[in-house]
Amino acid sequence: MAGNSFGQLFRVTTAGESHGAANVVIVDGCPPGLPLSAADLERDLARRRPGQSRLTTQRKEPDTPEILSGVFEGETTGTPIAILIKNQDAKSRDYEALRERYRPGHADFGYDARYGRRDHRGGGRASARETVARVAAGAIAKKLIATAFGGEVLGYVVQVGDVKAEISEPPTLASVETLPSGEPNLVRCPDAAAAARMIACIDEVRKAKDSIGGVAEVVARNVPAGLGEPVFHKLEADLACALMGLPAVRGVEYGAGFGVAELRGSENNDAFVSDGGVVRTEGNHHGGILGGISTGMPIVLRAAVKPTSSIPQEQRTITREGEATTLTVKGRHDPCLLPRFVPIAEAMVALVLADHWLRWRAIRG
Amino acid sequence: MAGNSFGQLFRVTTAGESHGAANVVIVDGCPPGLPLSAADLERDLARRRPGQSRLTTQRKEPDTPEILSGVFEGETTGTPIAILIKNQDAKSRDYEALRERYRPGHADFGYDARYGRRDHRGGGRASARETVARVAAGAIAKKLIATAFGGEVLGYVVQVGDVKAEISEPPTLASVETLPSGEPNLVRCPDAAAAARMIACIDEVRKAKDSIGGVAEVVARNVPAGLGEPVFHKLEADLACALMGLPAVRGVEYGAGFGVAELRGSENNDAFVSDGGVVRTEGNHHGGILGGISTGMPIVLRAAVKPTSSIPQEQRTITREGEATTLTVKGRHDPCLLPRFVPIAEAMVALVLADHWLRWRAIRG
Amino acid sequence: MAGNSFGQLFRVTTAGESHGAANVVIVDGCPPGLPLSAADLERDLARRRPGQSRLTTQRKEPDTPEILSGVFEGETTGTPIAILIKNQDAKSRDYEALRERYRPGHADFGYDARYGRRDHRGGGRASARETVARVAAGAIAKKLIATAFGGEVLGYVVQVGDVKAEISEPPTLASVETLPSGEPNLVRCPDAAAAARMIACIDEVRKAKDSIGGVAEVVARNVPAGLGEPVFHKLEADLACALMGLPAVRGVEYGAGFGVAELRGSENNDAFVSDGGVVRTEGNHHGGILGGISTGMPIVLRAAVKPTSSIPQEQRTITREGEATTLTVKGRHDPCLLPRFVPIAEAMVALVLADHWLRWRAIRG
Amino acid sequence: MAGNSFGQLFRVTTAGESHGAANVVIVDGCPPGLPLSAADLERDLARRRPGQSRLTTQRKEPDTPEILSGVFEGETTGTPIAILIKNQDAKSRDYEALRERYRPGHADFGYDARYGRRDHRGGGRASARETVARVAAGAIAKKLIATAFGGEVLGYVVQVGDVKAEISEPPTLASVETLPSGEPNLVRCPDAAAAARMIACIDEVRKAKDSIGGVAEVVARNVPAGLGEPVFHKLEADLACALMGLPAVRGVEYGAGFGVAELRGSENNDAFVSDGGVVRTEGNHHGGILGGISTGMPIVLRAAVKPTSSIPQEQRTITREGEATTLTVKGRHDPCLLPRFVPIAEAMVALVLADHWLRWRAIRG
Repeated sequence: MAGNSFGQLFRVTTAGESHGAANVVIVDGCPPGLPLSAADLERDLARRRPGQSRLTTQRKEPDTPEILSGVFEGETTGTPIAILIKNQDAKSRDYEALRERYRPGHADFGYDARYGRRDHRGGGRASARETVARVAAGAIAKKLIATAFGGEVLGYVVQVGDVKAEISEPPTLASVETLPSGEPNLVRCPDAAAAARMIACIDEVRKAKDSIGGVAEVVARNVPAGLGEPVFHKLEADLACALMGLPAVRGVEYGAGFGVAELRGSENNDAFVSDGGVVRTEGNHHGGILGGISTGMPIVLRAAVKPTSSIPQEQRTITREGEATTLTVKGRHDPCLLPRFVPIAEAMVALVLADHWLRWRAIRG
Repeated sequence: MAGNSFGQLFRVTTAGESHGAANVVIVDGCPPGLPLSAADLERDLARRRPGQSRLTTQRKEPDTPEILSGVFEGETTGTPIAILIKNQDAKSRDYEALRERYRPGHADFGYDARYGRRDHRGGGRASARETVARVAAGAIAKKLIATAFGGEVLGYVVQVGDVKAEISEPPTLASVETLPSGEPNLVRCPDAAAAARMIACIDEVRKAKDSIGGVAEVVARNVPAGLGEPVFHKLEADLACALMGLPAVRGVEYGAGFGVAELRGSENNDAFVSDGGVVRTEGNHHGGILGGISTGMPIVLRAAVKPTSSIPQEQRTITREGEATTLTVKGRHDPCLLPRFVPIAEAMVALVLADHWLRWRAIRG
Repeated sequence: MAGNSFGQLFRVTTAGESHGAANVVIVDGCPPGLPLSAADLERDLARRRPGQSRLTTQRKEPDTPEILSGVFEGETTGTPIAILIKNQDAKSRDYEALRERYRPGHADFGYDARYGRRDHRGGGRASARETVARVAAGAIAKKLIATAFGGEVLGYVVQVGDVKAEISEPPTLASVETLPSGEPNLVRCPDAAAAARMIACIDEVRKAKDSIGGVAEVVARNVPAGLGEPVFHKLEADLACALMGLPAVRGVEYGAGFGVAELRGSENNDAFVSDGGVVRTEGNHHGGILGGISTGMPIVLRAAVKPTSSIPQEQRTITREGEATTLTVKGRHDPCLLPRFVPIAEAMVALVLADHWLRWRAIRG
Repeated sequence: MAGNSFGQLFRVTTAGESHGAANVVIVDGCPPGLPLSAADLERDLARRRPGQSRLTTQRKEPDTPEILSGVFEGETTGTPIAILIKNQDAKSRDYEALRERYRPGHADFGYDARYGRRDHRGGGRASARETVARVAAGAIAKKLIATAFGGEVLGYVVQVGDVKAEISEPPTLASVETLPSGEPNLVRCPDAAAAARMIACIDEVRKAKDSIGGVAEVVARNVPAGLGEPVFHKLEADLACALMGLPAVRGVEYGAGFGVAELRGSENNDAFVSDGGVVRTEGNHHGGILGGISTGMPIVLRAAVKPTSSIPQEQRTITREGEATTLTVKGRHDPCLLPRFVPIAEAMVALVLADHWLRWRAIRG
């Protein structure tokens, strides 16, 4: 079924579990002639990698991608690109306690209801481990849209717990990855002051054997006007599907988002202006998309990410037989998912844009 | 392309513009043996119908559905169900002024960029008129899931402008459609006191030649555990795609939604309990879905709807040639989209549930 | 499900039964700017129409297409094109005898097994009546490929019973539709001598209350090199699906077809030559397609069509309860399907070519 | 794009080239609970393996499949099954001469036209090497349909050159793989006398530095009535797509096939009879499928396979620049594709049946 594939023309199909042999992704539909090597995938895989800081799970995975097909003499050939990423630091013993018990906040029970069984080791297919394949595919999509129309996709954290960032000027990859001091920006929040408070918040919940939620924002720049679809698969609908399909996401909005509820039309409508022949709008309440189709303004999305479900404190739950029990989740988990969520969200946005750009070409040539 | 189709196994394809001859929907994949007649479609079409109260556009459309195929001797046959809904009260002259000018907040410019042309009459395909086809299809989906697993989908308004409802007990269709006084609940808000304030708010913005946004909530009850997909097309992802694909929606959330940003894992995790052999959770922060798969708890979604873009006051914009101009949108428009949004949102949720129920059957028989 | 849709990017979805209210087709993905009116659909609908000669069923259907959407001011808009073709001369009483009995050679039993019910009137969805929708959609595809690359699709009959045509020079629409005498070519066989013998054969089987099979050939000219897919959905695979999905087809071949079994590689390989800078082959054993991709040479396909199953003589069969009985099929049926098969086969070939041309544009721009 | 995926619900996606690192297949949609290990894939991979006899290419590939995901504790989990098959004996140097020259009968020119480049080593993605992934996936499908409904798919060779087999009794795997003498049946023709003549024919063409075509037949037994679709994706249409999508296939037919052209309806119609409560037909001209839906009778298909295009004798062709040249194809090639075609064709048929069985479950539960 299409459950493990995404996209119509730039189409990715993934497979793999947290504690299986490997994760695999096949990217079908990438046009020929795009320069590509494994090195192109490594930057974002490194940004997603576990163990990159004290704020993230300590699982160690080199996440070295092997491109098995679809590239010849340094360029894509137009045939499917298969990428293999082996799992290495899988400590399945940590999970024996989960075989018969449902972790609160996890997919365990639903999986059992759906499949009548589950791979309980680290969540199996339900683990965020599968996002490694998305990030690899997304790196190809990023390169494609950069080549095709100068498209850039950048994510960053705008809220952790009750700490909210003030974004005064357009973030850059540098401001997201590095603090003004030159040190790594562990939470990927371009407001350095807020970043410090976010880190303090995460350190505190970790010590309290707890976890905390947050919000990430993703901006896509230089997207040409005209990408999207009029009805069911509006650009924003496919983007919402992309982000809501990520682990732990509980809400998605774009432009003024939920804030539109309190706005009047005269406030929310962005006036069209001609800026030296280029159509633009005054303000961007519409987040770069109107009626399902891009307007050429920056596309601005936000996703709400819940606090990590796996917490190292005792919680009440039941066994597969329905008996009440308790559970303390072991294994290695991020106390806050947001820092590593950023490259994953970027990947999904890039996949949607690559797909809709190909769809645009199909009808307009 | 798949742009005008929705769903994998319960698949709807729509066609039609605001001021064309008709709207059409083909529902493919409905199992055989479901009792069905045009009367089944009429309740929700009436709830969506323009002109139903002073809060809505005064366009008059009887919206009488004709079932052209797929039903024989009162039951579905398993073959595709085509439904025709003719357009009648299309006053295209109102729209001549739009031929060369882009309405702020509308899809006009994006359409032009995408297609190099547009049907400017009432927005053409971009008009909310197309949702009549969704509501007809959704009525079939509602009947299917009711028959299959007692599924119920109910929407209602929880916010208009800064007026927020307090939902103290589970809303019913009666409480959504009718006030305690017996009068029609014009805003479909089950909190009668809030409803009165919402109506006052809408009356006020209408007099001010303006419009106002809001938030609707949709609850799906009796959905069995196990519906969904693990990765890209998680149940919440398909639901987000469904709702974000509706006109004017700017955000979608479920369960605790954007509120998760400030929660800790120990607060947000819902403990599993056995309730007489049935697995349930204490609390429903997870909104009935974990890891992409339903848990059997009520599915609770919210969508943020922007203020109507078409407002009868002068706004600045540009012509197709890029010259600055102004525009006062004529035609007949809802000052607040929320009351009529409710049945449309219900329809989309029902379509997703019908589709995922068929997908479940495919793998589990 | 995708069962009633065809194509990836130029995508048609049909609905309708033999004796229902109407047949409907939605064409999604047609690029904007193609001049189109109902008149464009009428030529091929007339070629397919029942009652056009003594060789065909005497059912009378005007088959007037109504374009309900997707066309504005004489050109396609890029939004879905819905076409309605009402059924008129449906004499359901003729079919009462079929309610409980399975017609030999018909889908009746399989439908019952699949759906647990069936619309027995004229075969319901299984009737060749549904091909009216394909022909309407195919006419749009023909116009698209003619505009895009001068593509022409022409079908004709090459065998009826044991009468085989000799095709000495490339057939034209004129030679297929009209005899050298100026009279209509009732069997659409461009070899006039064979046509006369085919007509005599059909007249003879009709008088014998029987029916006869045959073979049609379809040629697509001016198709550019490079259309197709390398693996599962090779151009020939999608074409085979298209033709084998037509009623009564029992075999499909292209180029040398089944004749390759007796050929050696040195005979079957067509040498590449450069013809004034254009790559061509000497000979066309490969039928215009190699490895799933068009070569620029004419695409040549053949389909074997079985004798009409409905024959007005007594045949043995069983009832739904499994009791032995006999049946004489009433209603109005073609004694040989080939003449009317020609425009239907052309339509399907055109749909595949339009689809693959859009796919090509997606990857190559 | 969907070009490298096949199936709606039992969906396979493949990647890999002849001389790349590996071939990969992801099987999505296999229901949970099917016992599965790499050993289940090995029998058919061995039947397809190059170098298995003097009649086949001497390339040596162990073709050891690694299951990377989707199986846990010996059973499928319902999540995607990724299989990796490494390429080992790839002698790319043999192919340098092809970089600038188009092999007659090969996809080389079309690929260049489509992608503007190609991996010339062994045909790249156009090589029959990719069928190794199909056979691995097909082995899973075979096991699924055997478990689900006792389904069996068996292929065999019925023609090589002008040698035609007489199939007097239903072939078995034993009669296909082994001669009455106990020796391996190198051509997989269950008519031992014909097999001997086929082998002689192949030996002769090989010595003549040539190749020869043939016909294979595939029978699917125990398929329940009711699988299929009424219109575009009729069971026979999907089967035709499956087989015509295989390398070198030039024609597909089922039941009476092209023979129907000369039959009358009264001859071709198979009478329904009740055989102890089971509906059967007298005769099987219809090849187990009527109107797109299986009848419960054996499904009988035939595919025409062209003579291998790669022959070790000089042929005329052109360079990429259009200059006339000659070419003698080196590398290791089968003089007749038929013996190894058999397991590949079986795999494709099994994939279609598994897919349609899941589709059936979706609508009938």
